[in-house]
Amino acid sequence: MSNFDLTIHESDHKKPKPQTDQIAFGRTFTDHMFMMDYDTGKGWHDPRIVPYEPVTLDPASMIFHYGQTVFEGLKAYRTADDRILLFRPEKNLQRLNQSSDRLSIPPIDEEEVMGYLKELVKLEREWVPETDGTSLYIRPFIIATEPSLAVAPSKTYIFMIILSPVGSYFPGGIHPVQINVEDQFTRAVKGGTGMAKTAGNYSSGYQAQAKASETGNADVLWLDGIEKRYIEEVGSMNIFFKIDGEVVTPALNGSILKGITRTSILEVLNDWGVPVVERKIAIDELYEAYQAGKVEEAFGTGTAAVISPVGELNWQGKQMVINNREIGPLSQELYDTITGIQRGNREDAYGWTIEL
Amino acid sequence: MSNFDLTIHESDHKKPKPQTDQIAFGRTFTDHMFMMDYDTGKGWHDPRIVPYEPVTLDPASMIFHYGQTVFEGLKAYRTADDRILLFRPEKNLQRLNQSSDRLSIPPIDEEEVMGYLKELVKLEREWVPETDGTSLYIRPFIIATEPSLAVAPSKTYIFMIILSPVGSYFPGGIHPVQINVEDQFTRAVKGGTGMAKTAGNYSSGYQAQAKASETGNADVLWLDGIEKRYIEEVGSMNIFFKIDGEVVTPALNGSILKGITRTSILEVLNDWGVPVVERKIAIDELYEAYQAGKVEEAFGTGTAAVISPVGELNWQGKQMVINNREIGPLSQELYDTITGIQRGNREDAYGWTIEL
Repeated sequence: MSNFDLTIHESDHKKPKPQTDQIAFGRTFTDHMFMMDYDTGKGWHDPRIVPYEPVTLDPASMIFHYGQTVFEGLKAYRTADDRILLFRPEKNLQRLNQSSDRLSIPPIDEEEVMGYLKELVKLEREWVPETDGTSLYIRPFIIATEPSLAVAPSKTYIFMIILSPVGSYFPGGIHPVQINVEDQFTRAVKGGTGMAKTAGNYSSGYQAQAKASETGNADVLWLDGIEKRYIEEVGSMNIFFKIDGEVVTPALNGSILKGITRTSILEVLNDWGVPVVERKIAIDELYEAYQAGKVEEAFGTGTAAVISPVGELNWQGKQMVINNREIGPLSQELYDTITGIQRGNREDAYGWTIEL
Repeated sequence: MSNFDLTIHESDHKKPKPQTDQIAFGRTFTDHMFMMDYDTGKGWHDPRIVPYEPVTLDPASMIFHYGQTVFEGLKAYRTADDRILLFRPEKNLQRLNQSSDRLSIPPIDEEEVMGYLKELVKLEREWVPETDGTSLYIRPFIIATEPSLAVAPSKTYIFMIILSPVGSYFPGGIHPVQINVEDQFTRAVKGGTGMAKTAGNYSSGYQAQAKASETGNADVLWLDGIEKRYIEEVGSMNIFFKIDGEVVTPALNGSILKGITRTSILEVLNDWGVPVVERKIAIDELYEAYQAGKVEEAFGTGTAAVISPVGELNWQGKQMVINNREIGPLSQELYDTITGIQRGNREDAYGWTIEL
């Protein structure tokens, strides 16, 4: 199979494009999508760009019963001079294959799929919004489609890429959020699927999210599933703290997702000579540092927000207000740097962007 | 909404029914299925029996991305005098709602859905096979259908019931299986979704299953996710041991599924006056008892097999051969009792069966 095999069936009916400042996340989709099929013995085949349309599946398809599925999320950005940039997309396809390995899903050819992804975004380039903070969200995903109730890996899969124009994550400017430290529900544990981007990891957090919302918190800080003591992730982002001049983020331990923004921030901080360490960090240690006045900044990192500053943490009735609920200078500089590179406003000294 | 609302659209094309001794599990489906829809504000509505056919879903449907889904599994049995029996179906619908609660899915009305389920099985009664050990497998499930990539509970769902005639779990007679005690991968942990029947719990076990198969084992015995010491489940069944005259099964701890066969066996053993206890049981404790010659029987329990005797356990290079790899007398009597009640060959003193 090569890019030569890609077929393109253009849609006759083009949808109106939304006002980019009025788009709710992930509810508007472009005119086309990418699909390819997998059959055991035949491998991945029939790569095609087709009109965005419903998929038709047998009710016994394994995706509905045993959750064999993986996904990715990345973005295309429009620069001021009208170029379209992707941010480290090869990292997403690498991670997709790592997730697939955990879920016993056959790997894709990363180079070929990169070609298909680029072709799809090129075809939909008018859908990439231009306002600051906006982008075209790219969602590759794989679902198990074999119609069988046997608890075993599927013999057939569909790989799809859908595209959704998204508004700014911070339409009114960056406002640090209030977070509940969850000490009852568990997101993931060593030996589980926490390091994989797979569906079941997300809906399993809805109850904790609802609990957080009830007490006025915007999101959840997850602790480890064993001792409920070590900090793991915030919502569906990685988490960083600046404590006494040093930046700390939880070390990858098998239950934390290896975020691409996380990796990029570690590289930038190292480049800047800012002390930074990946290690275990306990919530009680954080609270002690907070009481000593040493917690200077806290922020989540992910594709959606890039940097989402944390203004307040609530843990077992204890409140930690961070940097007077304002974005800290390091958080701001990291945000400006990464988003600047993504949108082509800053020099990409790291070679992270790919122009279509 | 009441049963009065149920609409039935009969299929014009009836499929040929398979030879019941040649049916692989979960690959053959009957002529009809049940469906109903949920919309926030409207609740569950439009209950209907329709021809078995593919479902059409937007590629952004939340089931494909965040795994918000639950399911159940139960069986209809044909008695020697041609009656159709269901085994404790109300327990399945109760558990479905318990699973839904964990996954932030709106509950169904158990009584109404029981009515729909019975109507569907009645319509398909010719599909219930008659050979000993065969049955009609019933798979109710709910999937999140809102087309949105926001990580939040869906505003729309579909509830479906599909039916599949299944052959005997032990076509050549009951053969105890060889099991690998998994000490690397984790099925579930406290605070997670292990007690819920939700898709992600199943595909997350495929790697451990493959590892077990590579070393000649038929299935996996899961240990707890925290200490990797306490016994939880075997494959997708509960596990029981008879040790020194006493039956032991792991206590429900939030990460173990509350099996309906498990519950029934506990009730039968109590009724018989056999000493039985639900408690934590460590794998090293089991091995010590084994070395002392005290492990008399071991068996998994679940809807598919009812009783699946364990003939050999392999744990970190240590082998435990149980009852000379033969089914034990208690396992056999439990199997005969439960299957006898299910098929109407034994008196149902417990009132567990419901006749259609």
